[in-house]
Amino acid sequence: MAKAARVVQKDALHKTVARIFTAAGCSDEHAGVVADVLVWANLRGVDSHGVVRVPRYIEMFKSGEAKARPDIKVVHPRSAALVVDAAGAPGPVALQTAMAAAIDAARKSGVAWAAVRGTVHTGAIGYYAELAAKEGMIGMGIVAGVPNMAYHGARGAAVATSPLAIAVPSNTHGTILLDMATATIALGKIAQHKIRGLPLPEGAALDSEGLPTTDPDKAVTPLPVGGPKGSGMSLMFELMTSVLISNPIVAPFHAKAPGGRKHRQNAAMLAIDVTTFGDLGAFRSAVDAAVGAIKAMPAASENAEILLPGERGARTFEQRTREGIPIPPKTWEALVEAAQAVGVIVDG
Amino acid sequence: MAKAARVVQKDALHKTVARIFTAAGCSDEHAGVVADVLVWANLRGVDSHGVVRVPRYIEMFKSGEAKARPDIKVVHPRSAALVVDAAGAPGPVALQTAMAAAIDAARKSGVAWAAVRGTVHTGAIGYYAELAAKEGMIGMGIVAGVPNMAYHGARGAAVATSPLAIAVPSNTHGTILLDMATATIALGKIAQHKIRGLPLPEGAALDSEGLPTTDPDKAVTPLPVGGPKGSGMSLMFELMTSVLISNPIVAPFHAKAPGGRKHRQNAAMLAIDVTTFGDLGAFRSAVDAAVGAIKAMPAASENAEILLPGERGARTFEQRTREGIPIPPKTWEALVEAAQAVGVIVDG
Repeated sequence: MAKAARVVQKDALHKTVARIFTAAGCSDEHAGVVADVLVWANLRGVDSHGVVRVPRYIEMFKSGEAKARPDIKVVHPRSAALVVDAAGAPGPVALQTAMAAAIDAARKSGVAWAAVRGTVHTGAIGYYAELAAKEGMIGMGIVAGVPNMAYHGARGAAVATSPLAIAVPSNTHGTILLDMATATIALGKIAQHKIRGLPLPEGAALDSEGLPTTDPDKAVTPLPVGGPKGSGMSLMFELMTSVLISNPIVAPFHAKAPGGRKHRQNAAMLAIDVTTFGDLGAFRSAVDAAVGAIKAMPAASENAEILLPGERGARTFEQRTREGIPIPPKTWEALVEAAQAVGVIVDG
Repeated sequence: MAKAARVVQKDALHKTVARIFTAAGCSDEHAGVVADVLVWANLRGVDSHGVVRVPRYIEMFKSGEAKARPDIKVVHPRSAALVVDAAGAPGPVALQTAMAAAIDAARKSGVAWAAVRGTVHTGAIGYYAELAAKEGMIGMGIVAGVPNMAYHGARGAAVATSPLAIAVPSNTHGTILLDMATATIALGKIAQHKIRGLPLPEGAALDSEGLPTTDPDKAVTPLPVGGPKGSGMSLMFELMTSVLISNPIVAPFHAKAPGGRKHRQNAAMLAIDVTTFGDLGAFRSAVDAAVGAIKAMPAASENAEILLPGERGARTFEQRTREGIPIPPKTWEALVEAAQAVGVIVDG
């Protein structure tokens, strides 16, 4: 029988993660941001993007793929356009910086777009979109990465499972938060199915031969959601991020260029200041009316539940904030090892 | 046996459509824009959004749902934010105005967002996104409309098949143009299947009882692409357009408010000036490198073809520009009738 998951309270987990990143060389501020983002993912039940990622960041600091003390530069070439040169900063640091800058700029210009060049492992990008919603703005984020998903009609990994997140503030329904991969199933979810020994849905992934499989042990390449729609979105995100800021990923990957398969990501964050277009209170109420109308609809079947974008995550967030975060034994052991590698002793 | 389609050359079709709209009361300029957009859709093979829509516009002018001489107002509250009050203008007029304003603003602010309030039948929105690409910019467009698509987990029409379009200019591959509905299948495509007597794909639509069907005669409500992803995107587009500019559609529809089921649409257009972030020529070449890498991949199967976003449409565009546009007899008869209703005699 599998060992039971360890349940860790969010503050304790946050402190542990922050200590590890501080010991790995990050500033207290950056270590705090990384812990914010990873623990947020665990609180929302997106465990594939939570503290399970800690060991990989630590490895990347050692290999030089990521920088614990990145020389991040933010330039603001025009009123509504920013470029964040992340210089290998961990995704949470780079994207939090970008969205904060976009929010600041949008207060003046109404709308602002922050392009992010050269980061790693951006995590659950709903976090950054929600930063805007918390400031009474609409937030949107897209990410591009190293190809790990099929392109409709092509064999093998062609584009990335690049996510899209959109966050909108309401009054009584919290943040309406869409956070979706362009894949039918995220790679992290395949990993979760593997850990739990559950089969994948049909049409979600290909094996190493490029043939359909529902076996999570054999699944290598997720398929795009909606065929050409999902892979089309992913390709456009590469053009709108990586190619726009002259740091392409897809082309060097396929050209087998030196470093072309090295993990790296680019991104963009958009902030729309609601007060540019009308009253924020009225907007929040109108958001409630729209989503309330959807929630009040009859269910498609007896077992169906009508969930708003992000609602399941918000519910898990409440529960795990009260009851703690379950961490599987393997994840915990890897976290303890990663901590030891940077000289941190994790209690318990 | 069905009567053969009539083949009409694009210039002749454009002239006919423009004459009809001028006779219906539109200015020459507006009539020309409507003809541009509808004939463009036909040229690209998106016949569901082409001249087949003419009779409905004419009806809407008569009923007052649309205005042939709209009092369109464009305001520019902040450097990167615009609001186009379409005042019932046909979609092509409203959205062309919005994208042109966004392009102008983006030349200064780097990025600009134009919100469109109160238009009708926006047509194939790839057209407007491509306007930006033709100016060396990245263009994006979203539209919200009256619910006609299921929301994941709910019974009946809940949200609209709201489309997303993204256009990026290249050097040698033309405009890379993603133009997708958030539905598994667009309503227009269901209509085309009905006309041709072809069954729908599995999992694409529900009948009037809310049950799955592949019979295009029974299909009433298309299902969202990727379940919660498609319906989530559609709901977010309503919040980012209709709700943002205080002209909600989803809430009044479900509240059965007076006029809540009346056809109307809101939209938003985003323009990103590539030169804000780097050199346009280098960008175009890097776009070619990215999409060229995808095109050069091995095909998933013997019969699979790797198509870029918009490539099939561009191919049809070339062919129909040379050979003319096939118009089914029913569509032509309806066009002739619509013309007669406004006193225009269509030859042939």
